Amino acid sequence: MTDGILTADQILAAAQDVLRRYGPAKATVVDVARALGVSHGSVYRHFPSKTALREAVTQRWLDESHAELETVMAAGIPADERLRDWLAALFGAKRKKALDDPELFATYMVLVKEASAVIDRHVAGLIGQLEQIIAAGVARGELAAPDPAVAARAVFQAASTFHNPIHAAEWGRPGIEREFTALCDLILRGLEPRTG
Amino acid sequence: MTDGILTADQILAAAQDVLRRYGPAKATVVDVARALGVSHGSVYRHFPSKTALREAVTQRWLDESHAELETVMAAGIPADERLRDWLAALFGAKRKKALDDPELFATYMVLVKEASAVIDRHVAGLIGQLEQIIAAGVARGELAAPDPAVAARAVFQAASTFHNPIHAAEWGRPGIEREFTALCDLILRGLEPRTG
Repeated sequence: MTDGILTADQILAAAQDVLRRYGPAKATVVDVARALGVSHGSVYRHFPSKTALREAVTQRWLDESHAELETVMAAGIPADERLRDWLAALFGAKRKKALDDPELFATYMVLVKEASAVIDRHVAGLIGQLEQIIAAGVARGELAAPDPAVAARAVFQAASTFHNPIHAAEWGRPGIEREFTALCDLILRGLEPRTG
Repeated sequence: MTDGILTADQILAAAQDVLRRYGPAKATVVDVARALGVSHGSVYRHFPSKTALREAVTQRWLDESHAELETVMAAGIPADERLRDWLAALFGAKRKKALDDPELFATYMVLVKEASAVIDRHVAGLIGQLEQIIAAGVARGELAAPDPAVAARAVFQAASTFHNPIHAAEWGRPGIEREFTALCDLILRGLEPRTG
């Protein structure tokens, strides 16, 4: 491969392979460059440090579920349905990752612990989408919440069993789908407009 | 110490000290017997195996927060207040343990992973108390839930950020009290009887 056509995305894909193969403790930038057949200088031109590269890999992995969430955000449905679909899309995306490729998932669990700023941004982005859903629902009379921002954080925390990777061991458990539905029911009742 | 007066509780207290001192990987029944100045046979008379002893220590630790929960269960207050107080008592007890003695807490985190049957019983007991609160509230018209058992599990999961030890790292965070209140508000709105 010539350095001229090396893209950030190629580097991130190679870095993921290297992290999986050598483990987060041992993987180096030189390993990534070697896997791509380029000098480590070519990698540093895109990512100024090993930390920057690892954070970018983590960010990319976290963002992978965003496409499905964007679809839910764009759908022409009432806010209560959107909220349920959004939680289901997030749970589905995270669970798929954890169950389809447990080894890679474990690798990322290590990376995620190092990259607290990346995680904070990721979580803030997710809670921001929830706030958008709730605020729009309140404006249309489909939901009720005294403060959509506060409600968004509470909903995100209430659903943590179904998206926070520290709960991944529970995601293959029989009955987890039923528990997810029960939790969504409780949350949506909590946001239901009152007739009285 | 003479074997004659050795109680199970003395053994459990000594076992906790030994586990803290040597760590869960290294602590043995012989260490516990030595700490008590008795033969290891005296320990085995109460606990037939090392596993049984470790499970009993874990159980005792988990049960420590029960006294406060029992007080809440016995209080003469409406079900919505009882539910909030119960969640607050559980959160308070767990957080106190995690923040007051992080080293012992870490020791128990290891033990808890080994003792899944003990944990399952503990969790079932807690969800059972929630179901009692909710069912009594429904009977008195103070709460609404189509199925109190299902609602109890959903409430327990919704509050997992505030009692599951895997979330302990979040418990010292500024704003955690406010987040707990927002979550309780959401849960209680979800269980509110509808006037319509």
